[in-house]
Amino acid sequence: MFYRVNMGTLTVTKEAGDQYQGLGGRALSSKLVETEVDPTAHPLGEKNKLIFATSLLSGTGAPNGGRMSLGAKSPLTEGIKESNVGGAMGMKLGRLGVRGIIFEGLPQKDSCYVVKVSADGVVVEEMPQIKGLDIYAAVAKMQEKYGEKVAIACIGTAGENKMAAACVGFTDMEGAPTRQAGRGGLGAVMGSKGIKAVVVDDSGAEKLVFADEAAYRAGAKKLANALMAHPVTSQALPAYGTDVLVNILSEAGGLPTRSFSSGRFEGANDIGGETMAAVNKERGGKSGHGCSPGCMIRCSNIYKDKKGAVLTGGFEYESVWSLGANLGINDLDDVAMMNRLCDDYGVDTIDMGVALGIAMEAGLAKFGDGKAAIALLQEVGKASPLGRILGAGAAITGKVFGMRRVAAVKGQAIPAYDPRAVKGQGVTYATSPMGADHTAGYAVATNILSVGGKVDPLGAEGQVDLSRNLQIATAFVDSTGLCLFVAFAILDIAEGLEGIVEMCNARYGWNKSVDEYLEMGKQLLREERLFNKKAGIAEGSDDLPDFFRTEKLPPHNTVFDIPKEELNKVFNF
Amino acid sequence: MFYRVNMGTLTVTKEAGDQYQGLGGRALSSKLVETEVDPTAHPLGEKNKLIFATSLLSGTGAPNGGRMSLGAKSPLTEGIKESNVGGAMGMKLGRLGVRGIIFEGLPQKDSCYVVKVSADGVVVEEMPQIKGLDIYAAVAKMQEKYGEKVAIACIGTAGENKMAAACVGFTDMEGAPTRQAGRGGLGAVMGSKGIKAVVVDDSGAEKLVFADEAAYRAGAKKLANALMAHPVTSQALPAYGTDVLVNILSEAGGLPTRSFSSGRFEGANDIGGETMAAVNKERGGKSGHGCSPGCMIRCSNIYKDKKGAVLTGGFEYESVWSLGANLGINDLDDVAMMNRLCDDYGVDTIDMGVALGIAMEAGLAKFGDGKAAIALLQEVGKASPLGRILGAGAAITGKVFGMRRVAAVKGQAIPAYDPRAVKGQGVTYATSPMGADHTAGYAVATNILSVGGKVDPLGAEGQVDLSRNLQIATAFVDSTGLCLFVAFAILDIAEGLEGIVEMCNARYGWNKSVDEYLEMGKQLLREERLFNKKAGIAEGSDDLPDFFRTEKLPPHNTVFDIPKEELNKVFNF
Repeated sequence: MFYRVNMGTLTVTKEAGDQYQGLGGRALSSKLVETEVDPTAHPLGEKNKLIFATSLLSGTGAPNGGRMSLGAKSPLTEGIKESNVGGAMGMKLGRLGVRGIIFEGLPQKDSCYVVKVSADGVVVEEMPQIKGLDIYAAVAKMQEKYGEKVAIACIGTAGENKMAAACVGFTDMEGAPTRQAGRGGLGAVMGSKGIKAVVVDDSGAEKLVFADEAAYRAGAKKLANALMAHPVTSQALPAYGTDVLVNILSEAGGLPTRSFSSGRFEGANDIGGETMAAVNKERGGKSGHGCSPGCMIRCSNIYKDKKGAVLTGGFEYESVWSLGANLGINDLDDVAMMNRLCDDYGVDTIDMGVALGIAMEAGLAKFGDGKAAIALLQEVGKASPLGRILGAGAAITGKVFGMRRVAAVKGQAIPAYDPRAVKGQGVTYATSPMGADHTAGYAVATNILSVGGKVDPLGAEGQVDLSRNLQIATAFVDSTGLCLFVAFAILDIAEGLEGIVEMCNARYGWNKSVDEYLEMGKQLLREERLFNKKAGIAEGSDDLPDFFRTEKLPPHNTVFDIPKEELNKVFNF
Repeated sequence: MFYRVNMGTLTVTKEAGDQYQGLGGRALSSKLVETEVDPTAHPLGEKNKLIFATSLLSGTGAPNGGRMSLGAKSPLTEGIKESNVGGAMGMKLGRLGVRGIIFEGLPQKDSCYVVKVSADGVVVEEMPQIKGLDIYAAVAKMQEKYGEKVAIACIGTAGENKMAAACVGFTDMEGAPTRQAGRGGLGAVMGSKGIKAVVVDDSGAEKLVFADEAAYRAGAKKLANALMAHPVTSQALPAYGTDVLVNILSEAGGLPTRSFSSGRFEGANDIGGETMAAVNKERGGKSGHGCSPGCMIRCSNIYKDKKGAVLTGGFEYESVWSLGANLGINDLDDVAMMNRLCDDYGVDTIDMGVALGIAMEAGLAKFGDGKAAIALLQEVGKASPLGRILGAGAAITGKVFGMRRVAAVKGQAIPAYDPRAVKGQGVTYATSPMGADHTAGYAVATNILSVGGKVDPLGAEGQVDLSRNLQIATAFVDSTGLCLFVAFAILDIAEGLEGIVEMCNARYGWNKSVDEYLEMGKQLLREERLFNKKAGIAEGSDDLPDFFRTEKLPPHNTVFDIPKEELNKVFNF
């Protein structure tokens, strides 16, 4: 069942959406955007739509199957965008039988709306008392009104101010807004529609009906076995969280440091996962925290300050990198404060960290100065001209300050793996229709972690094939609602992938093969690229900023050297 | 003869450039950019080049034949850019036999360079004492050093600060820096290369050799006759300047007012050409001023303040519109002050006015408040965060402030003719490879001034054909060095076009037909579009911002309604 919420008329309609059968998550959100949004529409205008889409396995409680997708034309990339998010909402929407919510139109007055979804349907309510609040405060007010058990998606002042790097904050299983649909500025699209929050209450939901519940359970068991067997998903990630990657990447020479000027950070260990786990133990924080229902990996965390008060949560590797190593900052408490501020204002930590790095290179603060970085970030909360520049993301910050070392593709900042030292990842950044996105084809697995085989991270050989295969597989995984980290297990353990296919088939009574699911991934990528072309984004944009090709990255002193013509072969299917 | 100036090594080489035979002006600058610049290069990076190109008739003294072209990959549009400029330099470079100067590389130290061109060749000189100066002051210092008779191209602080809307200021025949290569941010490219100014001294130049001087003179006479016969070029423009268009466009309902929210400005007459001419008479300013050698139209001016001191010059319709009507300002002295500030900081008046309109809509000042607008503009001179936002142009300003009514195409602001009421112009804005550019195919001539026939400005019929024909013809005219305003005469008087063809042929000993010259125009457009495609700009970007299709423009209450598919037929050749 689909809900269509018109913010111009404040009316809600219900649709069967039979034409979208067989689609979930990214495949569904992208299909809705392609079908309903004019590619030439202004991202903040009347013709753009914001999609909340549940995934093929939403509501089932599948292992690590709690994720959902947001979609729209992106104010950051000006192309199609899917932003994938954990937290509690995917499960609840799935239990309510909601496959998608289409938010459309622009509000007629400057108010503040909350969209409430429950077993009784969808209503749009005014809630002026949370207008202008940061996300933590707004969520607390909504929990007072709607109860502790609802799932909430909320924008901060960045979204209300339509900043192009604004994210949407989602509550986790304890109700803390620590999960983000981070990338692509979808918080600004939500803000343009006057929606401060979406609240989902699944009380009274009917029991999910499976086409073949026994077969589903058997499939789930296979995936669970694989997750429990693989050392990355059963040991490294639960123990140290994603932040375990800081030391690994620094060691590999691929941790972008001081605005992509080195691949190794002398302060890596001060901010890495091993340190974070020790701090959590000492202060009574939590490592091994699950971000969404069904999570077996539990790589998230709750981070406390020196006094033992919760400072932030969902404090992930990408954020520790962007706000830490990328700024030359090795004080984990300063980095945690910045993570909290980003989550509270509602801006993407990746684009924000890269933007701050550019601002530092432009002379606004010194690399390594955590307090100065915090002060710059606070400008985003004030929405001062400087804060608006930063809040518009790294590419715009680079443009406004006239900088030429700007790590962004299609307007979106390059994440935590330097493409000169993790070249498969560089291919993904260059070619993904999402703009620079590490999750779109996570070649780090094979380049660095030797999962799914091994491709030399410093060589040009094999990277295009690697990225292509991962982008196709990811397009499928992002449609299931499974956490991308299941990939670690299924790349090495065949039973895991079988389990996923069996769960999807048993959920709906399908009989699809792996190849058919991968074809869905291919078709998704083709359609996303077509949307971008119609939006004005040509194949010429499938490349990295030129400094990655000319400026050598210490310590390996390599450049990104995969020829443009090779990059153009990624989508040869 | 071509000069290649490497700013990395500070060396100059001389080249014959035989491969560029038959090309001049825009055809030459674009060919050099296509040939030598990687389309994926960062506009401010080492791989971009800045081209100064003289035109087919440069140095001849042809009627209105003093213009030249600057070219580069644009920091504003991220595509290919030609910026056409009057003033004294084109004639002098032509007399020196210089067809082009290619500036390449990035300086190794943060200095301030002047490139001096004379009969003795080209030298690069350091001149730290003009670093950070506004253009009028820098030009005065250079005139002290190099003499009053040199022609100077100079950037202001905007170019030094690499603002994406930075222009290059050129001196006119009296040595005042009142002419600009305004559009596309080429001042930032010049700034990235550490070049504060280019100085041309043509003393000692040898006499130009014509293949057939008598035939050249006969052709020149034909064009001169046409210019003297046509009422637009012989009466309206000399008497009132280009600013005569304010009342005409307001009357026609196509004068974008208060950030494109109306097509008619109640204060039009206060800032129109008739008023400007009266003020000039009263204060001892000058109407009927020629901007470059050979000018017969003399549509420029020198504008004095209330005390009789020169305030600004080259105070054109587009600037009066952008800084006046578009901001709801009807005080001509305030508008003149803003024109002076733009010329002094070195920013494009069109992008700046549209950016200020967006800032006003965002609430930073009230429409109509001239003093507040001046204060906002002064932020550009200070390079404050706000000033940097504005200096990055209208599209970036709109993005940073999260606005959805942003009149720009391919990153460049839409000029002084609302596309909803002058629809042929809308086709040109949408489709020109230069981004929104009124001069690329000036349909105003036929839509509003009934020159070259008549196409109803409010109808959709015939606009695509009109824009296509004008874009092709303009690509040729912009290659000759002739002022675009000769088009008024040659569209109605066949003898004028004959004269142009005869001058070009006689200059070089060619025997080309009109069709062959137009084919050069077509080829130029094809190649510029191909560069853009390789740079990542797809056909999907050949459209107007969506609010022009949905928001009705008073007083005619029309929208831009030429279908996307029709726009895609502009380049069907």
